[in-house]
Amino acid sequence: MDERPIGVFDSGMGGLTAVRQMFRLLPGEDIVYFGDTGRVPYGGRSAETIVRYARQDVAFLRSFDLKAIVIACGTVSTTALSVLKKENAIPILGVVEPAARAAAEATRNGRIGVIGTKATIRSGAYENAIRALKPDVVLSAKACPLLVPLVEEGRVQRGDKVTERVVAEYLTSLREESVDTLVLGCTHYPLLSDVIGDFMGKDVTLIDTGEQAARAIADLLTRQNKRSDGKSEGNRKFFASDSPEDFAAMASMFLGSDITECAEHIAIEEY
Amino acid sequence: MDERPIGVFDSGMGGLTAVRQMFRLLPGEDIVYFGDTGRVPYGGRSAETIVRYARQDVAFLRSFDLKAIVIACGTVSTTALSVLKKENAIPILGVVEPAARAAAEATRNGRIGVIGTKATIRSGAYENAIRALKPDVVLSAKACPLLVPLVEEGRVQRGDKVTERVVAEYLTSLREESVDTLVLGCTHYPLLSDVIGDFMGKDVTLIDTGEQAARAIADLLTRQNKRSDGKSEGNRKFFASDSPEDFAAMASMFLGSDITECAEHIAIEEY
Repeated sequence: MDERPIGVFDSGMGGLTAVRQMFRLLPGEDIVYFGDTGRVPYGGRSAETIVRYARQDVAFLRSFDLKAIVIACGTVSTTALSVLKKENAIPILGVVEPAARAAAEATRNGRIGVIGTKATIRSGAYENAIRALKPDVVLSAKACPLLVPLVEEGRVQRGDKVTERVVAEYLTSLREESVDTLVLGCTHYPLLSDVIGDFMGKDVTLIDTGEQAARAIADLLTRQNKRSDGKSEGNRKFFASDSPEDFAAMASMFLGSDITECAEHIAIEEY
Repeated sequence: MDERPIGVFDSGMGGLTAVRQMFRLLPGEDIVYFGDTGRVPYGGRSAETIVRYARQDVAFLRSFDLKAIVIACGTVSTTALSVLKKENAIPILGVVEPAARAAAEATRNGRIGVIGTKATIRSGAYENAIRALKPDVVLSAKACPLLVPLVEEGRVQRGDKVTERVVAEYLTSLREESVDTLVLGCTHYPLLSDVIGDFMGKDVTLIDTGEQAARAIADLLTRQNKRSDGKSEGNRKFFASDSPEDFAAMASMFLGSDITECAEHIAIEEY
């Protein structure tokens, strides 16, 4: 038993799709979430800038006494995870390894697609992690830079003609290559599961990186006997680097439920 | 004669559309440009955050001895100009006043449309400025949050089906209201002039805010006898808060020409 909270961070709101799964799998855990909404999005920025921002995000979270950190951001997981692990003595989980494992297990025809932000795809991290587990897979990766702005505009529904066209444009090549498994390598993308699923067809397994990260942290805490199961619902704290009101207003879309706790503002550049 | 440089800043690259016009109208002037590419976009952020970032942008520029500052960013001009003017003793020009004046002069039927980012439209600044000049105009404003990501993806050409559809969606109501003048209230939008112009029709005058700001600073310097006309081409320095290589690579799209000078990296959060 370890009653300390789990820290979770993302460049903005997307990481809440992982938190949503953590609520489901680990309801009794205390969670501290930081969304860097004042500097979102990270996905198009250079590696140096992403590492600098991620260090500050971790430094803020570690102002709490945490038992582990989940990087609920594809871009940071692919670009800064190894640096952050080296610099911090507590367990840090990214979204790449768990999703890579799930994808390697899910594929039947050995053809796996990966989509993500520019930084994520440029890093090759998902491909490397999948290949390390299953060397003979055929991998296709595609950067989808417009999907985050579309999700942040709430344009996630079936029938949104712009979103459907953008999804079709990005995913046509992956569909033509007959991938049977598609890694949604950005925590915003699960909100587009309907549109993406419709386009790819029902035989393609979509890997939700937030969900896999939540499973991985649950497994880790169970193995290390560090789960906090005393409460039926843990304490949840939310912090953002831009307006906490805007954060709260958008959070429900990602979380699937409203946040009842107030979000607080953090001057992240001071960390 | 005043040989000191003019400072120009924007949340990112869009302000280069104003710089392009300054090169044309004021070729002999020295220019220092800062693009906050490490924190772009500003348009969806809260007013507090925009003011904080804008103060840092000005503080950096003022590490040079400047004769004037042009805020080549619709969002900052509409949200932080009065604060910045109060805090700085040199002339500071935004993009709102010059564009409002041009729109008030251009309209024949008294119906003017304004498009911009969420923060810009929320501020009502263009509408207020136009109404102050011409109280009887009918104004229609529309936030167009997906246009900046589309421009930054380089999706500005006629025939881009996604861009055309997004533009049509945003501008249909303005076209139905028969505006004859449309203020492009964001320095990214001039790159979409073809697509926007095609949709609105050739009888609608598009007001390029960067161009109007360049005219305004030229007028101001002429009036104050501060123009620097000694050189055929001024010195131009470019700074960015993310990778200078990425800045240089994208700059030509906004500037209409390559930058031959190296861009330099600035840690803007230290200002």
